[in-house]
Amino acid sequence: MESDFVRWLRGRLPGHPKLLLGPGDDAAILRLADSGRCVVTVDMLMDGVDFELSKSSAARVGRKALAVNLSDLAAMAARPLGAVIALALPRAGGLTLAQEIYEGLIPLAEQYDLAIAGGDTNSWDGPLVISITALGEPTAQGPLVRGGAKPGDTIVVTGQLGGSILGHHFDFDPRVNEALWLKEHHPIHAGIDVSDGLSLDLSRLAAESGCGAVLDLSKIPTSPAASELAKKLRDGSTALDHALGDGEDFELILAIPPEAAEELLAKQPLGCKLTAIGQFVAEKGLWKIDSSGARQPLEPRGYEHRLDA
Amino acid sequence: MESDFVRWLRGRLPGHPKLLLGPGDDAAILRLADSGRCVVTVDMLMDGVDFELSKSSAARVGRKALAVNLSDLAAMAARPLGAVIALALPRAGGLTLAQEIYEGLIPLAEQYDLAIAGGDTNSWDGPLVISITALGEPTAQGPLVRGGAKPGDTIVVTGQLGGSILGHHFDFDPRVNEALWLKEHHPIHAGIDVSDGLSLDLSRLAAESGCGAVLDLSKIPTSPAASELAKKLRDGSTALDHALGDGEDFELILAIPPEAAEELLAKQPLGCKLTAIGQFVAEKGLWKIDSSGARQPLEPRGYEHRLDA
Repeated sequence: MESDFVRWLRGRLPGHPKLLLGPGDDAAILRLADSGRCVVTVDMLMDGVDFELSKSSAARVGRKALAVNLSDLAAMAARPLGAVIALALPRAGGLTLAQEIYEGLIPLAEQYDLAIAGGDTNSWDGPLVISITALGEPTAQGPLVRGGAKPGDTIVVTGQLGGSILGHHFDFDPRVNEALWLKEHHPIHAGIDVSDGLSLDLSRLAAESGCGAVLDLSKIPTSPAASELAKKLRDGSTALDHALGDGEDFELILAIPPEAAEELLAKQPLGCKLTAIGQFVAEKGLWKIDSSGARQPLEPRGYEHRLDA
Repeated sequence: MESDFVRWLRGRLPGHPKLLLGPGDDAAILRLADSGRCVVTVDMLMDGVDFELSKSSAARVGRKALAVNLSDLAAMAARPLGAVIALALPRAGGLTLAQEIYEGLIPLAEQYDLAIAGGDTNSWDGPLVISITALGEPTAQGPLVRGGAKPGDTIVVTGQLGGSILGHHFDFDPRVNEALWLKEHHPIHAGIDVSDGLSLDLSRLAAESGCGAVLDLSKIPTSPAASELAKKLRDGSTALDHALGDGEDFELILAIPPEAAEELLAKQPLGCKLTAIGQFVAEKGLWKIDSSGARQPLEPRGYEHRLDA
């Protein structure tokens, strides 16, 4: 019964100084800092779409469900505050499954100082669905939005890209601390996380900023997994194709004024590598420069959530 | 594609003064009042469990999904602030379905001055799932929690109870304004909304408060729908049984000091009727007084979300 589960959860969850009222009431109460602004994001993951429960542990799935939300907070340069977790569990073994999901996500919540504030735990005859809503707070430097890139800004990415499906999409570290540090120490104009694919998410950031973006394809930091996937698939795809189009890298794409970008790239102050991969330009659209130096249109590719009328 | 849907949504949603950043970025930003406290609640509704899409319009389902969250905010005496909406849509007709769901819930959001801040819109091969997270703010009088009832407090309910399945569970008005008014003008000690059944939710409130509750069965305001349902089912159940055990009434159960309760019941200051149905007592457990005046244990009944190990 749900009340047994709530009892278990209350005993299992670590306390949190900002959680004024936790699971078990009609709602939870969180304390925010003085800014009076609350950042909120939701991500829903479904069995068969975002994971396959038959192939992955519920703990790993639970961790991912929270991590994708933390990645959204990172893309806003927001400090994690709390989260609520809604579950639709298959009837058989639902209690065990719920506990495993929480066991997977609680360590990640603790790592990022995020309070698990509550949830809604249901069972049904359908597949597992996890919907997590995360709350965060902008820092004194303000939020990092998509719409602030300026022509001339350098396009900078964290980490390496492509082939996430081989494991990174479960085990990635959301770039929360990196985003907070960068926003505090440098004038970052805009940011987005790579959830649907580098070229697609970059084109979205550029469109929101009312400008275009030119990618230098020779500079894209392709991951070893991108090469491995290209080799595995034998479909003519290259590591670069995967870096440009694969979803769920959960790295950050940032628009940084060129002087600041140059300094950051020289100093490499973060635990993950920063790479300049191109420039924002006044002319709208997405463009590529290849090894010959020629500039051509680049079709954004990535994962689009198709909705049919 | 999702981006077409986001475009539609941005055009369709009314602006809101507290929504600093709306749909289309990595997260939304809401402005909170000075209290620095945020009330947060989540409810997930699944096709075949909480509604049947084959029998009810998507607009009605969308309205319900938001209304149950507003009822949780009411149970906390919190002022509605914003909501995010996660959808898992069947692939065929997903776009139309998403639009109908939003068309159903937008008028309710406007009625309660709640900002639709954003969402996550997905499609899959499973049935429709809607998960809404609502944010609210406690007022200067503080939140209304479950744990504050004191022995001697009168048990007061809003409205009428039972038979919600005949239609009320879709079309109810969440008691947001009633809760805010009551908390502002009277010393309300504790509150909960009837989501799983009067006797079950009352027993939860009493347990959280560390006390017991005695129900005067002759005083329970049974709804016409409770009588109609008893008649329809022909299973020996009475209107009172339905009032005690049916879920989704979304009325409020309140713990009010006797003097204040007496004044409220005499004045009936709200659009819905307030009824005293018993008293909180020091002895733990749930009890009933029947027409003969004898006090006996009462088994809490209602909808429990079973989770099997």
